[in-house]
Amino acid sequence: MTGAKRSTASVSTEYLLRALAEILSEDRSKAVGEAVEIFTSAKKVFVYGVGRSGLAARAFAMRMVQLGLECYFIGETITPVVSEGDAVLIASNTGSTMSAIQVANIARRVGAKVVSVTGSKTSKLAHASNVILCLQEDDDPERSRLAPLGTLFEDACLLLLDGIVAQVMVRVGQTEADMRVRHAIMV
Amino acid sequence: MTGAKRSTASVSTEYLLRALAEILSEDRSKAVGEAVEIFTSAKKVFVYGVGRSGLAARAFAMRMVQLGLECYFIGETITPVVSEGDAVLIASNTGSTMSAIQVANIARRVGAKVVSVTGSKTSKLAHASNVILCLQEDDDPERSRLAPLGTLFEDACLLLLDGIVAQVMVRVGQTEADMRVRHAIMV
Amino acid sequence: MTGAKRSTASVSTEYLLRALAEILSEDRSKAVGEAVEIFTSAKKVFVYGVGRSGLAARAFAMRMVQLGLECYFIGETITPVVSEGDAVLIASNTGSTMSAIQVANIARRVGAKVVSVTGSKTSKLAHASNVILCLQEDDDPERSRLAPLGTLFEDACLLLLDGIVAQVMVRVGQTEADMRVRHAIMV
Amino acid sequence: MTGAKRSTASVSTEYLLRALAEILSEDRSKAVGEAVEIFTSAKKVFVYGVGRSGLAARAFAMRMVQLGLECYFIGETITPVVSEGDAVLIASNTGSTMSAIQVANIARRVGAKVVSVTGSKTSKLAHASNVILCLQEDDDPERSRLAPLGTLFEDACLLLLDGIVAQVMVRVGQTEADMRVRHAIMV
Repeated sequence: MTGAKRSTASVSTEYLLRALAEILSEDRSKAVGEAVEIFTSAKKVFVYGVGRSGLAARAFAMRMVQLGLECYFIGETITPVVSEGDAVLIASNTGSTMSAIQVANIARRVGAKVVSVTGSKTSKLAHASNVILCLQEDDDPERSRLAPLGTLFEDACLLLLDGIVAQVMVRVGQTEADMRVRHAIMV
Repeated sequence: MTGAKRSTASVSTEYLLRALAEILSEDRSKAVGEAVEIFTSAKKVFVYGVGRSGLAARAFAMRMVQLGLECYFIGETITPVVSEGDAVLIASNTGSTMSAIQVANIARRVGAKVVSVTGSKTSKLAHASNVILCLQEDDDPERSRLAPLGTLFEDACLLLLDGIVAQVMVRVGQTEADMRVRHAIMV
Repeated sequence: MTGAKRSTASVSTEYLLRALAEILSEDRSKAVGEAVEIFTSAKKVFVYGVGRSGLAARAFAMRMVQLGLECYFIGETITPVVSEGDAVLIASNTGSTMSAIQVANIARRVGAKVVSVTGSKTSKLAHASNVILCLQEDDDPERSRLAPLGTLFEDACLLLLDGIVAQVMVRVGQTEADMRVRHAIMV
Repeated sequence: MTGAKRSTASVSTEYLLRALAEILSEDRSKAVGEAVEIFTSAKKVFVYGVGRSGLAARAFAMRMVQLGLECYFIGETITPVVSEGDAVLIASNTGSTMSAIQVANIARRVGAKVVSVTGSKTSKLAHASNVILCLQEDDDPERSRLAPLGTLFEDACLLLLDGIVAQVMVRVGQTEADMRVRHAIMV
């Protein structure tokens, strides 16, 4: 686009892609491996998150169902109770949203494993977790106008979890074709 | 409340109770029995509805999960695909909401049974259903100001389905205490 | 139905209608009047509830929107922030659900008015409320098998709130026809 | 990570970042500019999508509310009716989801503008749209195991819409601090 004023939208998208690449380049393979082990050996997988983090968590839950795992989003109509042997994924940037901490504490009390995706390693949510997937951005002066509020965390969370989807596919021996068959009715 | 001007709210609530008693007094025991048989012998139970009818349907789905049935609300995050041997409950007053008809048609095509709660026996939804639970009110001049739009249908739908909950409890041998154990995390 | 064994479903529905009539017969006109005043003079109306109580609250929110009020369900995608001059309706049987108490406390702190529908006059939620609509059932031996868990509270909550809808209609001078025009797209 | 077997998760995440960069590098500045104009001059902004595309659309709706626009997600509790002068954003990969097409047609009929994010320029949804934001990936042999089903579309949709958020911020003169003040209660 030489000579043309580039739109804020494309500048922001490029900024997002660069910042996400940086956040996601950190080596999390050990924690990711543990998370995959927890999800695939759990009786049921529960997912929780509030706001845009909750949307990234829901996107992950949809794939788990398509992979044949029994997976629920806490707070929706039909969530059964969390029990021993279950796994709970919680996404929260601050790690201090009260309901997220409560879900983690209840889950641990009944003997379920907790995997958290959070921006804060030292948060109450992190302390209550068996596995922590930390997504911490370096703040820079451009962030606030190109990726306001928790945008980087939320978008990185989606991509990190989509990476975990690919690894769960391998682990449970499922192909895209298998997943398509389990795709929900879309009307 | 002799001598006092009664509030529209209490007049409306009394009107609702009277009108609901009339709508619900009709003998639906045969259709209800067939619906209970379909729900309790299904592999999975799916529930669908739009707007306030959808809320009544969701309230039913929550009880099904607490009764130990595998039950999903179509359109929520984690709905798996409907298959042969499943049951689908659809609530729609007009029976002509396009997505409701589509869900019914897809369900029938794959070999699932469809139970509909509807205000219209001759609707497209009714035609696509294995069992029809019809809730038809006599219109009267007071209805529009004391129970506007689909209020009577929606409220009757909730009470009818709560009656079915009690019958499913008996059929699957579950008590309130059993249901409480399966109550979802409320945070 | 002389001589025939009546189905549990119809026995339960009749039990519900009787128990609801009793719960709702109590005179709440003063509290209802205050609630209507709060809703109709608020800048925005917010609604909150978890589980089946939350569904009854949502059903009320839909009608408020159809009546032309600006109304939001807390926790859904697009809820704006609660501010001074707003009203918050919270439905919780126990009045001790942590998020319900938190919503009430945050609302009061910013100067919004809180109306609660609850089964417990002495609960933390009730203490945090400006107006309490109490729905307390007498427990009886049949309740647990005909109306398990919070069924009576939740169904009474829906009917009470539908009564309030009729009163708000009068107050804001809206007819069923006006409401129909504001009915959301149903696809 | 020399000498170490890299996890499928990190391979998938890197693949996603590369593929997203490619999809998003296409010049869409004209269509984006028109979309921003439509959103910021609309009376109300409505958002719709099913499944994971719907989650990306919801994430956008949350930001619009934080930017002070009146924005609703169609299908949630409190959606008002779409009218002349409103804008509707619809996200659908295939552009053939029936409810998405219906929403577009209803919106056009009442005189609202439709912006679609879709993977198919020739779809029925695209035909019903005023502005088309097309996100078309080149299929390659690795995609199905590293980014199954609509993953690339859905993730690109989120990033594209987050870019649009940054441009709307500029247009309506809002900062991150302004948006934080409008952040919904998170409990």
